Amino acid sequence: MPSSSETAKIPSLSVLEAQACILDRIAPLDAEEVGLGEALGRALAEEVRANRDLPPYDVSAMDGYAARAADIENAPQTLQVIEDIKAGDTPRLFLQPGQCARIMTGAPLPLGADTIVRAEDTRALENGAVEFTIPVKLATDIRWRGENMREGDIVLQPGEEIAPGTIGVLATVKRSKVKVARRPRVAILSNGDELEALSDPFDPCKIPDANSYALMAQVQALGIEPALLGIARDKPEELADFLKRGLEYDVLLISGGASVGVHDHVRPTLATLGVTMHFWRVTMRPGHPVAFGTLGRALVFCLPGNTVSSMVCFEQLVLPALRRLMGHRRLFRRTIPARLTQAVKSKQGRVEFIRATLSRDATGAYVATPNTMQSSADILSMMCADVLLVAPSGLNGLAAGAIAQAQILEASVWQDTPDTESFT
Amino acid sequence: MPSSSETAKIPSLSVLEAQACILDRIAPLDAEEVGLGEALGRALAEEVRANRDLPPYDVSAMDGYAARAADIENAPQTLQVIEDIKAGDTPRLFLQPGQCARIMTGAPLPLGADTIVRAEDTRALENGAVEFTIPVKLATDIRWRGENMREGDIVLQPGEEIAPGTIGVLATVKRSKVKVARRPRVAILSNGDELEALSDPFDPCKIPDANSYALMAQVQALGIEPALLGIARDKPEELADFLKRGLEYDVLLISGGASVGVHDHVRPTLATLGVTMHFWRVTMRPGHPVAFGTLGRALVFCLPGNTVSSMVCFEQLVLPALRRLMGHRRLFRRTIPARLTQAVKSKQGRVEFIRATLSRDATGAYVATPNTMQSSADILSMMCADVLLVAPSGLNGLAAGAIAQAQILEASVWQDTPDTESFT
Repeated sequence: MPSSSETAKIPSLSVLEAQACILDRIAPLDAEEVGLGEALGRALAEEVRANRDLPPYDVSAMDGYAARAADIENAPQTLQVIEDIKAGDTPRLFLQPGQCARIMTGAPLPLGADTIVRAEDTRALENGAVEFTIPVKLATDIRWRGENMREGDIVLQPGEEIAPGTIGVLATVKRSKVKVARRPRVAILSNGDELEALSDPFDPCKIPDANSYALMAQVQALGIEPALLGIARDKPEELADFLKRGLEYDVLLISGGASVGVHDHVRPTLATLGVTMHFWRVTMRPGHPVAFGTLGRALVFCLPGNTVSSMVCFEQLVLPALRRLMGHRRLFRRTIPARLTQAVKSKQGRVEFIRATLSRDATGAYVATPNTMQSSADILSMMCADVLLVAPSGLNGLAAGAIAQAQILEASVWQDTPDTESFT
Repeated sequence: MPSSSETAKIPSLSVLEAQACILDRIAPLDAEEVGLGEALGRALAEEVRANRDLPPYDVSAMDGYAARAADIENAPQTLQVIEDIKAGDTPRLFLQPGQCARIMTGAPLPLGADTIVRAEDTRALENGAVEFTIPVKLATDIRWRGENMREGDIVLQPGEEIAPGTIGVLATVKRSKVKVARRPRVAILSNGDELEALSDPFDPCKIPDANSYALMAQVQALGIEPALLGIARDKPEELADFLKRGLEYDVLLISGGASVGVHDHVRPTLATLGVTMHFWRVTMRPGHPVAFGTLGRALVFCLPGNTVSSMVCFEQLVLPALRRLMGHRRLFRRTIPARLTQAVKSKQGRVEFIRATLSRDATGAYVATPNTMQSSADILSMMCADVLLVAPSGLNGLAAGAIAQAQILEASVWQDTPDTESFT
């Protein structure tokens, strides 16, 4: 175990420096073509253009009648229905003065018509006549050809995140396949003699390997199916074999064994395999001993052995890296400002990530209640957290009533109520 | 086409009434067992208990030395190292006065030890001796047996959403399989003679079927892989065949053709198939003509033909229904209060959903800028929206500077920056 003078030599970066150090070394992966059904959540790797005008012709925006505005400027006025036009029809007749056509939403305007009158502003009479009860201005409720999209227009740029609306646009321009950035191949390795694998028989003296699975789920939540390499024991040769396999992936996540203790073989073994380490420590809590290295284009993250610390480091450092590899521009979790219901202890000189639950005050503003348990060994408190509150490095703690940024964790993009008050 | 007096008879519900009408008729689907690798995003359908104490014995929370506090109360003090204990080891020796053991984070305390001294508060001497530079209180940096979890404790309740932290807990209690509510089987049907299927050759007079795919992506975003039934043309017999197939699913989503026009066959055909309609209209915009019915346990939603309207109706009415079927307690998208950069037009008597982008003001508070285009035909503006702002039914518009609730859409759970200021 190194003395305090030795550990002092190991460089510590701030969270922001560590993020920059990582992201500066990453570009989006190469593109691949996927079907529309597999494109959600990916980043577009090509420019997409409209292949027709939309609407393709002037259409009615309402169910009602196509008419000549001049005919009904002195409404009430009765006109004769000469045709019935629904979406997908081609109008057959030219509208003459005194005539109108029944028309459905999305149906093409007949020649001669220059306005649409909604059904509710009319009254059907006998013998195919209709009374128009009020005057309607020229060009009312018409959607003009090309109003929503013009043939040849760029409708999507590379880097656009493919959300449901984007899928709608891609289908609109008839793209059944689309180029997106490839997903990174991610390997996960746990490290430690004390660990019991999920498939191992129960041993009361062992610690279950939760990290492999928590990290698996964090990676899955980004739309990536990782490979679980298993548990490397604290033997340098066995560890080297595992690390060699892991370095064949785009990203290798190792939890445990990367501290500065004499028994921690991960970093020396990575060094012998040619991995360049860019930092070994980050001034954050939980998660101080976290390291990042590269071998060619492969990225290696050494995460702490505690599950909570490992998860928090993933959130701050690995998640933005994976999102950038996937070609995304938005790399970070959405945060919301929240008022603290109680004081939070934190230490100047490092950023602390505080597990907390969210609620609303009487005005509808967000308030955050820090979990009672903040031990990095307490996986239950990670599970119960809605958010990670960011306690800045410049302050010694945050007072009750202070505003902190809250990073919205996975399950908390959902809420219990639709905000009933905001609807009424 | 019915006259104004006929349409007046069709009941209109408010959005909140429609949500209640739907949710009151739904219970979570039956449970199924899935592997841990398939459990993310599902709702737990069983109670889960801890299968051991965690930690399983008293362990060190730090890299350092296990010692007897009484030995170092007059520090600086030199003790003899008798053993080296790492995580996974079983200590062999009983600590006597004047002795200490080198210990790693997570390693079990040797008998006789009653406190942990961090490495940085010691100095290694020759001949296996260590100088303790400062006194350390009894029971410092020890994690006690059972402190994080006690054997037999309920650690997860039914209904818990399985997030990465939950996966960590499940792995901790060695659950390689877990019971979750089954996912609903969802079918999607588009309706209309004007529609051109994605696989159809280009026809300048047709409208591409975007709804099937936008709905597909909205369903996929909830972790459900829907079945696309295709496009039903406006022929009652063909439509009936499609609807019969769709009613074999847990949920049938139909877009288009469910208005009150004479050419809209969807609702009469559903009626002949025995579907009970619970509402036909909702006082919302976009999306007024939206209907909900049931046949036994099957749910049927008739959504508007405009892609944007269909998507907005899905967000408000279908999404909470699917989440409840999946067993979730949090049914609604997270909202955040945002200040409007400009006035928003809306009409008293209905809730309007305004597509908008999010940004932050100088204080870090959220501001929302409504998209210039709010036409429900403008799929591009749906794609560009970060949020749907809720304009309440009690007001005629919202003024610039007013606060509205913003529903965070799919791609906007991510943001560009880590909130640099909040870290420093």
